[in-house]
Amino acid sequence: MTNPWRVVIVGGGFGGLYAAQQLKSDRVDVTLIDRRNYHLFQPLLYQVATGSLAPGEIAAPLRSVLSRQRNTRVLLGNVVDIDPDSKHVFLEDGAILDYDSLIVAAGSQTSYFGHNDWEQWAPGMKSIEEATTIRHKILYAFEVAERIDDPALRSAWLTFVIVGAGPTGVELAGAIAEIAREALNDEFRSIHPEEAEIILLDGAPRVLMSFPDELSEKAARSLVRLGVRVKCGLRVQQMDRDGLTVQSAAGIESIAAKTVIWAGGITASPLGKLLASRTKAETDKGGRVKVRPDLTVPNYPDIYVIGDLASATDKDGKLFPGLAQVAMQGGRYAAQGILRKLDRRPPLPPFRYFDKGSLAVIGRAAAVANIFGRHISGFLAWLIWLFIHLMYLVMFQSRVVVFVKWAIQGLTFNRGSRLITGVAPSDFNFSREVADLHSVEDRKPEQLTTSRRA
Amino acid sequence: MTNPWRVVIVGGGFGGLYAAQQLKSDRVDVTLIDRRNYHLFQPLLYQVATGSLAPGEIAAPLRSVLSRQRNTRVLLGNVVDIDPDSKHVFLEDGAILDYDSLIVAAGSQTSYFGHNDWEQWAPGMKSIEEATTIRHKILYAFEVAERIDDPALRSAWLTFVIVGAGPTGVELAGAIAEIAREALNDEFRSIHPEEAEIILLDGAPRVLMSFPDELSEKAARSLVRLGVRVKCGLRVQQMDRDGLTVQSAAGIESIAAKTVIWAGGITASPLGKLLASRTKAETDKGGRVKVRPDLTVPNYPDIYVIGDLASATDKDGKLFPGLAQVAMQGGRYAAQGILRKLDRRPPLPPFRYFDKGSLAVIGRAAAVANIFGRHISGFLAWLIWLFIHLMYLVMFQSRVVVFVKWAIQGLTFNRGSRLITGVAPSDFNFSREVADLHSVEDRKPEQLTTSRRA
Repeated sequence: MTNPWRVVIVGGGFGGLYAAQQLKSDRVDVTLIDRRNYHLFQPLLYQVATGSLAPGEIAAPLRSVLSRQRNTRVLLGNVVDIDPDSKHVFLEDGAILDYDSLIVAAGSQTSYFGHNDWEQWAPGMKSIEEATTIRHKILYAFEVAERIDDPALRSAWLTFVIVGAGPTGVELAGAIAEIAREALNDEFRSIHPEEAEIILLDGAPRVLMSFPDELSEKAARSLVRLGVRVKCGLRVQQMDRDGLTVQSAAGIESIAAKTVIWAGGITASPLGKLLASRTKAETDKGGRVKVRPDLTVPNYPDIYVIGDLASATDKDGKLFPGLAQVAMQGGRYAAQGILRKLDRRPPLPPFRYFDKGSLAVIGRAAAVANIFGRHISGFLAWLIWLFIHLMYLVMFQSRVVVFVKWAIQGLTFNRGSRLITGVAPSDFNFSREVADLHSVEDRKPEQLTTSRRA
Repeated sequence: MTNPWRVVIVGGGFGGLYAAQQLKSDRVDVTLIDRRNYHLFQPLLYQVATGSLAPGEIAAPLRSVLSRQRNTRVLLGNVVDIDPDSKHVFLEDGAILDYDSLIVAAGSQTSYFGHNDWEQWAPGMKSIEEATTIRHKILYAFEVAERIDDPALRSAWLTFVIVGAGPTGVELAGAIAEIAREALNDEFRSIHPEEAEIILLDGAPRVLMSFPDELSEKAARSLVRLGVRVKCGLRVQQMDRDGLTVQSAAGIESIAAKTVIWAGGITASPLGKLLASRTKAETDKGGRVKVRPDLTVPNYPDIYVIGDLASATDKDGKLFPGLAQVAMQGGRYAAQGILRKLDRRPPLPPFRYFDKGSLAVIGRAAAVANIFGRHISGFLAWLIWLFIHLMYLVMFQSRVVVFVKWAIQGLTFNRGSRLITGVAPSDFNFSREVADLHSVEDRKPEQLTTSRRA
């Protein structure tokens, strides 16, 4: 008996995990490498950012997910180099792995389009850490506002700007509007959380550009009903700790906002550029590796690139979108390609993305859905969203918990995960923010009395 | 109508929160100050440390808990000074609050008995951040061990030492033993998690010193059955990144252990010493403020000190223990004392602690309980523990979630919160720990092959 074929998978996101699961076979030895010890269900990350779910409810340890798959090993590690000719993967800790087939599924990260300094003012929405930072920022903003008398400054602390009106931005804006207007109600004594201003910005002419016109419009209307100000056709020009400047056809406008969240764009993992330089492949302007129709790197039929890291087109030349669906299907496709090769069966036809549809949820009990070309909106779309997401959480033990939690929240609007733990967002010091407002001469006892709001 | 009586409460733990709730009355204006925005259910903190529960499930935002109590305001702030004569509380951010009655319930923190440098090697168990650090350390230890071939070093990474065999230490040791022996089983390919060694150390002659002899012994036997090595009558002499040295009657012993957890002792919040210096009160050696039988500071009948920060004795001169029960009852007592004074009713009799009993849980489905003098152990004690803890979680919306989660875990042994997120424990770098093991000459591809465990 020959040694099993060695498959190394880089990345435990939707693409890498689905590839690994499809490779459950005695004929292959699978090693899945990730910098994190968990798979993250990114579509629900916005619920972590807004305190509806805890990180543990949208993530599952990769070891648990793959524990029963005896041919698969999970390694915590950071890939720093790949040698496609000698077929080696190099980890930061000095370890070297050899492979017969390589699947690179390192995904994408937040892109500030050349303005990396904006990251400090406007965290992105790709990781649990970023989601937790956003949660802190939102909660601290209310806490600071509660302590401030100056109306202009208070209003800046109560202004929340979301840059980017794709599904993530839309879902985030809806959730923040609900927190502000309903959940936090009654909890503050000086501010009324409903004073909060939630602004959703995008450079595109409408929200949810990837959806049909009609659904975009319905989503925008639902957002306005929740109290979100939707502003399209605007470009962010500048950003600092006090807010941002935006440019539109109408001119330049300044928005005073202490909380800005970046749902504006993504770029491929740097591993894309690295792999391209080693294989002499090309990358597109998003840093994705241009792959052949079978998702392999040109001249390297044993290296697959899938998911957000791959730049692949369908037969009409249209780029596959950066969606979980595409990554999952790419992962399964790559795994099948490898198994076919082992069986000496003819190769698969070119990769095709089967679009099951797209969904975006707007607040509680409303959504828009474009499923097999059918446009659905409102409560029915929300039910579909709920059903689909619960189905995908099937691999997590927490699906029952999430369901119960949502049910409770649906009834009570409580958000039990609304805690400020750990380190504060970068450069944030609550005492300093509040202290800035008290000059020393001001230090008279009556300044902060214990009397109630009238 | 006169202005309401202003009560300032420092600290939102069991003492402060119960005092605030008891003060729900039109006649008083309550301001509760805490450095955190949440109340923490500390008795279940060990479940966060071992990944059974998420932080959000054992903590509740103070604003939510008190939102319907219209006479109460919650402030996020850090008390830096108190002037007991002019009756002012000073916050770090410069704000000054005046009070008519003050309840100081600032609690306690981890004490290393003069060895503060041990904190970097052995995190304590008082805050969510510490619990998360411990969770990271435990999970990383298995990850590093999985990558190490050297048997001695591997064994050091698989040795977990818990210093302190009070309820927290006992519960932690039991939970880690279960993780190692059952939950993580099947997930690693090079190590067998059951190789892990869990050692519970204490200077006292037996575990659970606050319990009757008989229950201590039962607890020790349950621990041994779970695979925990119980070592009593030992003192920690020294500690560093490779382990610790302990001294017993038998001599000095070194234990190679990469993971050490400190459940060894607590000391009062520094606010105790500050208050004592301002009021000329005394503190005991634990830093607690010596209070009168009615829990007020000598000569300052409007300042109550309750919970872990108070050094108070019963009529036999026995110090009240540092338990949640004592803090809650002290909080209620202080609140009633204030309301009586407003009503010009005679003062309450001296504070008495009504001991409902104590409990410690050992792994899944076993516990010891001393309830109204009755000694109970095993499954029945565990059921009582479960019931009581669920009752106390009643104030949290998450109680149903916790219950469902426990039920699922009881059946499946999965631990969904076993994620490594955020910053690594201080001074820990996974790649470096593993890289230390590979010398440059070693860098041959076969070093880390992708073959399965035989």
